[in-house]
Amino acid sequence: MPLLKLLLGRRLANEEHTARKITAFEGVPAMGLDGLGSSSYGPEAALTAMMPLGAAGLAYIGVVMLPILVLLVILYVSYRQTIRAYPSNGGAYTVSKANLGTNASLLAASALMIDYVLNVAVGISAGVGALTSALPPLQPYTLSLCLGILLLVTFMNLRGTVDAGRAWALPTYLFVASFLAIVALGVYKTLAAGGHPSPVVAPPSAAPATEAVTLWLLMRSFAAGCTAMTGVEAVSNGVSAFREPVVPRAYRTLGAICLILGILLAGISYLARAYGVSAMDQTQEGYQSVLSQLTGAVIGRGVLYYVAIGSALAILCLSANTSFVDFPRVCRLVAQDDFLPRPLAVVGRRLVFSVGILYLAGAAGLLLIAFGGITDRLIPLFAIGAFLTFTLSQLGMVFHWLAELKHATSGRVRHGHRLSLAINIVGASVTGVALGIIVVAKFVEGAWITVLVIPCVIFLLKTIHKYYAELDAQLREDGPLHLTHADPPIVLLLIEEWNRLTDRGLQFALGLSPDVVAVSFMDLQGPDTREQHKKLRRQWSSNVEQPARAAGMKPPKLMLLEARYRRITEPLLQLIAQIEKENRDRLIAVLLPQVVKEHWWQYLLHTHRSYRVRRALLRYGGSRLVLLTVPGYLEEPRIEEGLEEVA
Amino acid sequence: MPLLKLLLGRRLANEEHTARKITAFEGVPAMGLDGLGSSSYGPEAALTAMMPLGAAGLAYIGVVMLPILVLLVILYVSYRQTIRAYPSNGGAYTVSKANLGTNASLLAASALMIDYVLNVAVGISAGVGALTSALPPLQPYTLSLCLGILLLVTFMNLRGTVDAGRAWALPTYLFVASFLAIVALGVYKTLAAGGHPSPVVAPPSAAPATEAVTLWLLMRSFAAGCTAMTGVEAVSNGVSAFREPVVPRAYRTLGAICLILGILLAGISYLARAYGVSAMDQTQEGYQSVLSQLTGAVIGRGVLYYVAIGSALAILCLSANTSFVDFPRVCRLVAQDDFLPRPLAVVGRRLVFSVGILYLAGAAGLLLIAFGGITDRLIPLFAIGAFLTFTLSQLGMVFHWLAELKHATSGRVRHGHRLSLAINIVGASVTGVALGIIVVAKFVEGAWITVLVIPCVIFLLKTIHKYYAELDAQLREDGPLHLTHADPPIVLLLIEEWNRLTDRGLQFALGLSPDVVAVSFMDLQGPDTREQHKKLRRQWSSNVEQPARAAGMKPPKLMLLEARYRRITEPLLQLIAQIEKENRDRLIAVLLPQVVKEHWWQYLLHTHRSYRVRRALLRYGGSRLVLLTVPGYLEEPRIEEGLEEVA
Repeated sequence: MPLLKLLLGRRLANEEHTARKITAFEGVPAMGLDGLGSSSYGPEAALTAMMPLGAAGLAYIGVVMLPILVLLVILYVSYRQTIRAYPSNGGAYTVSKANLGTNASLLAASALMIDYVLNVAVGISAGVGALTSALPPLQPYTLSLCLGILLLVTFMNLRGTVDAGRAWALPTYLFVASFLAIVALGVYKTLAAGGHPSPVVAPPSAAPATEAVTLWLLMRSFAAGCTAMTGVEAVSNGVSAFREPVVPRAYRTLGAICLILGILLAGISYLARAYGVSAMDQTQEGYQSVLSQLTGAVIGRGVLYYVAIGSALAILCLSANTSFVDFPRVCRLVAQDDFLPRPLAVVGRRLVFSVGILYLAGAAGLLLIAFGGITDRLIPLFAIGAFLTFTLSQLGMVFHWLAELKHATSGRVRHGHRLSLAINIVGASVTGVALGIIVVAKFVEGAWITVLVIPCVIFLLKTIHKYYAELDAQLREDGPLHLTHADPPIVLLLIEEWNRLTDRGLQFALGLSPDVVAVSFMDLQGPDTREQHKKLRRQWSSNVEQPARAAGMKPPKLMLLEARYRRITEPLLQLIAQIEKENRDRLIAVLLPQVVKEHWWQYLLHTHRSYRVRRALLRYGGSRLVLLTVPGYLEEPRIEEGLEEVA
Repeated sequence: MPLLKLLLGRRLANEEHTARKITAFEGVPAMGLDGLGSSSYGPEAALTAMMPLGAAGLAYIGVVMLPILVLLVILYVSYRQTIRAYPSNGGAYTVSKANLGTNASLLAASALMIDYVLNVAVGISAGVGALTSALPPLQPYTLSLCLGILLLVTFMNLRGTVDAGRAWALPTYLFVASFLAIVALGVYKTLAAGGHPSPVVAPPSAAPATEAVTLWLLMRSFAAGCTAMTGVEAVSNGVSAFREPVVPRAYRTLGAICLILGILLAGISYLARAYGVSAMDQTQEGYQSVLSQLTGAVIGRGVLYYVAIGSALAILCLSANTSFVDFPRVCRLVAQDDFLPRPLAVVGRRLVFSVGILYLAGAAGLLLIAFGGITDRLIPLFAIGAFLTFTLSQLGMVFHWLAELKHATSGRVRHGHRLSLAINIVGASVTGVALGIIVVAKFVEGAWITVLVIPCVIFLLKTIHKYYAELDAQLREDGPLHLTHADPPIVLLLIEEWNRLTDRGLQFALGLSPDVVAVSFMDLQGPDTREQHKKLRRQWSSNVEQPARAAGMKPPKLMLLEARYRRITEPLLQLIAQIEKENRDRLIAVLLPQVVKEHWWQYLLHTHRSYRVRRALLRYGGSRLVLLTVPGYLEEPRIEEGLEEVA
């Protein structure tokens, strides 16, 4: 417990909730890392797809990047609309649930969840991959580094979004400042040199062309480049993390992320063409990323180069953080609708959804271990979830505006709604087409896995829902209390010997019912231990039966059962079955005296029969059984200790 | 559970106990492996100590071996006496407890326990060491092989002594037959050749002498050779494992073990001298054990050589088994006197003391891992425990006969007792002197560790005893039942919502006491979940209070407590503390409705508040609290399922 407190900080009270909400300044590092990090692999992925064109490929970068930038603008505008329309939480799950129905919302939920898990695994391993290619001696520790960073990000998020946002602020804003400066400098140099700047460090020349340009190739390049947009939806899913007033803060965060991302994407594409930077084969020796070539070309290989590339690596590693902010929030919404385990909806120690964070960390950790921290195979699976989410969210908004239009009366409002509708129709169509292109272009490379997993997740969600529905059907009742005046229960008191605890148990039992049977088990320790039972019979007669009779009460019976297999469970269950058969309308209360263990080492010094028998009785006893525990202490505890431990 | 059944076999009933006891035939492999295995390292250890003497050392092997053989005869005779005097269990612990008092018995117990743990680690690693020196490619797997064999021996012993005895019978009797034959053939050849036989494969010649013979060197050789006697006490510790009639079966087993061991020791020494076999340096290349040189010299390197050496390796690996038979039995005796955890005295699934077996396996496993399966450092620690045990056992018998002499009346009986007394006085003196020699000769090499650990173990045993004494002082009572007619308890019923389970809980609570308070907690899921509590208040009024009033009962109160930290424990403990203060003489019954989990995956789907709150209440609630559990089921269980699971 103290360790937990040390790592995660003290337990926060409910009323501290507001203070734990974030501002736009913390919002960018908390929710924007995924989006911003995309700028370092999106353009590179598009250029990699164009490698067969050789140097000529650079001529087409504009053709591919322009639609991506347009898409980004559309996404920005339409997500603003979503945030305004659903200020409590405007994620794809909420929007599609409200407008497209349960099935669509489950599709959105599975797509989101899969994408978030993949984002964690891909982000961390890509970051570590870049790090180890910069520092080859770290290569053998790839998986350990991945898991170490996963652990760090998990702990920061278990502490809370505020803490994580503050911790990652430095690398985030360092990255933004460095690359905005590089882009600005590069553009200035290019313009000053009339479009043909001379690089400080010249990038390697492109490989010779092996193919001519085709539409298919451009499509694949576009699909690859679309990964640059993953993470943009984060703000809409995490609106509830913001401090009041929520909407303007969310606007500001979304705006900042999209603006920076747009400038970086446009700038990188423009400069790549101007400086003649093409993608290199990652499996070849001497590989350099597009970002690294470009930085070298613009500012050379000085200290600034290392600061900029270092911050890019950090951003990539931490881009997993976005998932940690949003995944638990999405899970909570889904869990509140009973499609995911209910513990996911419970606010944890530090006012974050700790269970969701742990599930995410677990799933991503397993993925990292399964793939040894190598991500080449995971990347093709990746953008599908994001674009499926975009499309569903946009489509939901389309139906939202259609419904609003029906109710709107004033002409001005109707006009506004029509404009919004148009924006979302465009958005839905464009993201839908992009999704189609991505699925087709990447299907063979691995997209089929995502296509296969999504229905499985939906099936799981529905199964969970069915469980809760059955549970509620069993339990739910809104009728009045049943006040049948039944006979008192038959009480079975389990005893090993006559002692103070047995005495207290028996007192309680006699208060509960006149029908009390003390049950003791013979041969529990193995054969040849019957001596103590003779003693027990004697004590029972003198210590229990005589005083009870003297007080005019029905004396409680002592029953000795043989434990042939040295287990209480079997003969006790048999006895209960028999009593239940003979007394059809009475409850049975089983009373277990239990010595309470105050220290861990006490568990080594006691047999755990009472624990095991309790478990078996609960499991198989049935609803005519009630279990009672009478605690015995070596040292009487003070309630204050318990209160201290909670704090 | 089915896996456990598959590995260990079905659970055995108490009445099958007799059938699980062993005969002398199973006794030799079950209890003799340690003793017989000693013959393969005892003579070698003695010869190794004499290496500085070169070839001349062989002349002194008789001087060293003769006292060892005499010691063996003394041990045989005196352990026969012990078995006869203590036919239920004649281990050093029992004998010294009866005759020398508690402290001496605890000394014996610690010495025995330490020796048994060491024997497991040393036996297995020595066996694996010999195996890997025969098959060098296995070298890197030393530790895995050690742990694998440990696992095998553990499982066989968890299945039961009978099964282990039968499984190890083949290698044991193969070893005995091979080496008795080799010794017989060697002696015949030697006699036929007039004392100078020509070896089939000549042993390497001894290293040149570097020292002259000294008493100190002979003493060290003797101390080293004494390891040949470890394991002889096993039979006396395990008498209770034998089938009736116990004493003659134990005699036969002890006799067989001592006789075979004696013949092997004498034969090996005689033949080593005749064939000129000396010990080789184990750290040098081309090392061969004495047993291997001797076998080669007598019968050459044919198939028989490999059969004999193979069986010797198997015996060495399995010599750990003796500890598995005896350690749990010794622990049981000590635990019955409350000096060790009581679970060690409980007969397990297969009528063996499973907990003791697991403790032994755990301790030996840790030793093996700590030392990487390499035993050179452990061996010097080893014989001390055995000889300390011998001495205490003999000394105990001396006092036994002294006491018997006082009571004996007939002259013949007195004569018998005097003889026995004399034997045990000789035994005690000789083993005591041997113990002294071993401690002195091996002190620097590592014996000091054992000398240091023994008092620590004794301290631990006494601490455990103190715990049980306090526990019993708290609990024990042999007075009559307290029949104070106290008021019924105040019942607190924990509820989350109004449902069938709450209804049943409330019914039971109302039967228990008129003072029932239902407690519900606000903000458990985090802030902003108060809506459901308004609903609960409404339902309580209409479903509970109105029907109760209509029936003329005091309506149970509904109390809403704020859970600031989203934990039930804190506000509940505060409430209980308050109630206890206001009602000094009443018990408090806390009633927890609980949905019973029938499948493992249900644990993922429920919050575990009721489990956690129960634990905290037990821990800190104090003895004025009684806990009640009302189980709710998704599917009503059948008791028969529970009975099936037990089988």
